Amino acid sequence: MCQLLGMNCNVPTDIVFSFTGFHHRGGRTDKHADGWGIAFYEGAGCRLFIDTKPAAESPIAELVRTYPIHSLNVIAHIRKATVGRVALENTHPFMREMWGKYWTFAHNGTLKNYPPRFDAGDCRRYTPVGGTDSEYGFCDLLERLRQRFPLGCNDDRVLHDALLEAVVELRAHGDLNFLLSNGEVLFAHCATKLAYLVRQAPFSRAHLVDEDYEVDFSHRTTPKDRVAVIATLPLTDNEAWTVIEPGTLMMFRDGAPVVFAASCTKR
Amino acid sequence: MCQLLGMNCNVPTDIVFSFTGFHHRGGRTDKHADGWGIAFYEGAGCRLFIDTKPAAESPIAELVRTYPIHSLNVIAHIRKATVGRVALENTHPFMREMWGKYWTFAHNGTLKNYPPRFDAGDCRRYTPVGGTDSEYGFCDLLERLRQRFPLGCNDDRVLHDALLEAVVELRAHGDLNFLLSNGEVLFAHCATKLAYLVRQAPFSRAHLVDEDYEVDFSHRTTPKDRVAVIATLPLTDNEAWTVIEPGTLMMFRDGAPVVFAASCTKR
Repeated sequence: MCQLLGMNCNVPTDIVFSFTGFHHRGGRTDKHADGWGIAFYEGAGCRLFIDTKPAAESPIAELVRTYPIHSLNVIAHIRKATVGRVALENTHPFMREMWGKYWTFAHNGTLKNYPPRFDAGDCRRYTPVGGTDSEYGFCDLLERLRQRFPLGCNDDRVLHDALLEAVVELRAHGDLNFLLSNGEVLFAHCATKLAYLVRQAPFSRAHLVDEDYEVDFSHRTTPKDRVAVIATLPLTDNEAWTVIEPGTLMMFRDGAPVVFAASCTKR
Repeated sequence: MCQLLGMNCNVPTDIVFSFTGFHHRGGRTDKHADGWGIAFYEGAGCRLFIDTKPAAESPIAELVRTYPIHSLNVIAHIRKATVGRVALENTHPFMREMWGKYWTFAHNGTLKNYPPRFDAGDCRRYTPVGGTDSEYGFCDLLERLRQRFPLGCNDDRVLHDALLEAVVELRAHGDLNFLLSNGEVLFAHCATKLAYLVRQAPFSRAHLVDEDYEVDFSHRTTPKDRVAVIATLPLTDNEAWTVIEPGTLMMFRDGAPVVFAASCTKR
């Protein structure tokens, strides 16, 4: 199983602490050694680092771990290849432009017997470059959203519900734990395993699961800061992580979950 | 004026030598300090590093300079902002997916009074994310190619000629020196300033212009290797660079220019 890590904040924040623990799962504390990637949004722009080396050995991961990039939205992924060989084009996160924004997507799970098998003859807007079920799924989700809203969608709830409808059709093919962001909001869909926490004042100490390392966030933050961290498995062992209920599509904005009526967050 | 650097090879090659000289132009030997970027193709995949820091001071540039990434096609760019503020979304190269391939584009020059001013209402496939004339031009070129070949184009000459037709329409708005690649071929269009060389056996020594540094390629190559390097200004002072004639769209494949009849390479 691959591992997901997401961050959504109300002020640009670096992900160095969480990534320090997370990257060990790419070959050291866990066996996801088939590449890794991370997308950082800075304004409308997006930096995407991908590598086929195990995260625990990658010079690019070392750079990310030591060079604080401040971002409102981050998506990271460590890969255990199931569908699609180990190759750069099969490495998450995937990125596409839709409605004048960069959308990035990382997936954990396997979609089986999964149409549509895109080919050039489909004349679709979004065509997979690699051979993973994940990228096919991403292209399919974007295609459905774009067909429904050719000019874009500025209503959080309408967009959330449309995405959930698309997800419901796809998840018949298998497990679809994913993180999806357009740089403004971050969606997290739990099929089997995903947890989150919100760090906000009063801040305290956090201790990593994957390395004996602790940070006191009260020394690094202002009272207004708020950060949501989403991960396949909790990254710290002394904070209250909330396990996301399978079947739920959460939407994060400004470091906190956007709360919709119950009927809209689960089907 | 921004600076362009491209590489097209017949075997995966690292660009460390050329990039070593080139990156000094981002703030040290020249004044292009408004960000930089580089795209590396590895198979169908593409790594894109972009940074708003001057290339000469960027930790990411330092990584690229010291971590040899082997690639058949590379496009790099150092920015002097003219249209669009210094921001990640305005940093070249730009990337989009077309026909199931990643296309990357870097531009030197300024397009003035340049429609189309895309907005969401346009319902186009390719919408700019940032505010540069360059990204608008890139989206416009892809849009025109895709409208002409909805299912893709596998004929080098047909693709070259269609791209040149699109370029001719755009270049009425200003200077369009650009590098464009889909990971298989690399296009180089010269409006005002662009030069190239082909390194092949017998290999010899090359000495950088921007730093007193020399490499003997005969120690690092096999007789079959062939590498084309394209740059705004020659990177070495002891090799025979060919200045590309303004108005020419060159296409490189396997480390050498693809030769078409003269009527097709210039209009």
